[in-house]
Amino acid sequence: MDLKAHIRDIPDFPQPGILFRDITPLLGNPTAMQYSIDVFADKVAEHRPDYIVGIESRGFMFGMPLAYKLGVGFAPVRKPGKLPAAVHSASYALEYGNDTLELHQDAFPAGSRVLIIDDLIATGGTAAATAQLIEKTGCTVAGFGFVIELVGLAGRAKLPDVPVTVLLQY
Amino acid sequence: MDLKAHIRDIPDFPQPGILFRDITPLLGNPTAMQYSIDVFADKVAEHRPDYIVGIESRGFMFGMPLAYKLGVGFAPVRKPGKLPAAVHSASYALEYGNDTLELHQDAFPAGSRVLIIDDLIATGGTAAATAQLIEKTGCTVAGFGFVIELVGLAGRAKLPDVPVTVLLQY
Repeated sequence: MDLKAHIRDIPDFPQPGILFRDITPLLGNPTAMQYSIDVFADKVAEHRPDYIVGIESRGFMFGMPLAYKLGVGFAPVRKPGKLPAAVHSASYALEYGNDTLELHQDAFPAGSRVLIIDDLIATGGTAAATAQLIEKTGCTVAGFGFVIELVGLAGRAKLPDVPVTVLLQY
Repeated sequence: MDLKAHIRDIPDFPQPGILFRDITPLLGNPTAMQYSIDVFADKVAEHRPDYIVGIESRGFMFGMPLAYKLGVGFAPVRKPGKLPAAVHSASYALEYGNDTLELHQDAFPAGSRVLIIDDLIATGGTAAATAQLIEKTGCTVAGFGFVIELVGLAGRAKLPDVPVTVLLQY
């Protein structure tokens, strides 16, 4: 199946000069959505995760069905102030300033293999910060999974040396 | 299975006097997580949805696995400025001021039956605003599904007269 036929290009979003790859047509088409999750699950199963984290908020959309299919636990990585119990924090650079992500300190037993899922890897800042969060819990990053990789932004170079699964490249 | 055993009570979050019902232990336990989605899917299948919407952002965590299982399309309802194409908007009252939710205008074909999913119904403001969004697309609200209902806040009274599925009541 040609999944790219279900990705919509939106020029100048969220700001002028950016071509946004919109996954909502993929989500809205049940055949393409189920196919994307089935293929994604088969690929990331090779990373042998004990847990999956999804990065707020489109990472939740793929991380949870993958966790459901693979029969592993799920934990959300969220923006500051959203998680109610004690958290680890990690910051990453934006074009102007910094942003922070949080993960519950008790999200996984120490020593677990944790797979990081997001819809898209661009510059890699959020994915790399999420890897730091997982290391702070005493766990190992089993791999990364992204629906879309924006290859020209070279985000993969920011990630630790573990397997990376990508469904679509632009 | 006693799903309440996997919900954690966090006092005084996000502000003093609020008892927060934390679903992250449920998400992190694969047996409980899969069971909750299987039971949820069986119940909401009775609403015969053509599409599922999840409300940002914990609604994404349950809405997508339900859409995957039921074989229907999914659309996100998001905070302002997050969806890249033309949107409908609906506002709802907060304790101080208002907040707004958005849905892509082309999320569903007119006449579709749309099921609204969120993790929790409290005062019902976000769920009622989401119902308005679905009506603006020319579609019908097939029902609502929540993991948790805070019964004392009477949010159900704000919803249109369609079936409501709830897994846990407090």
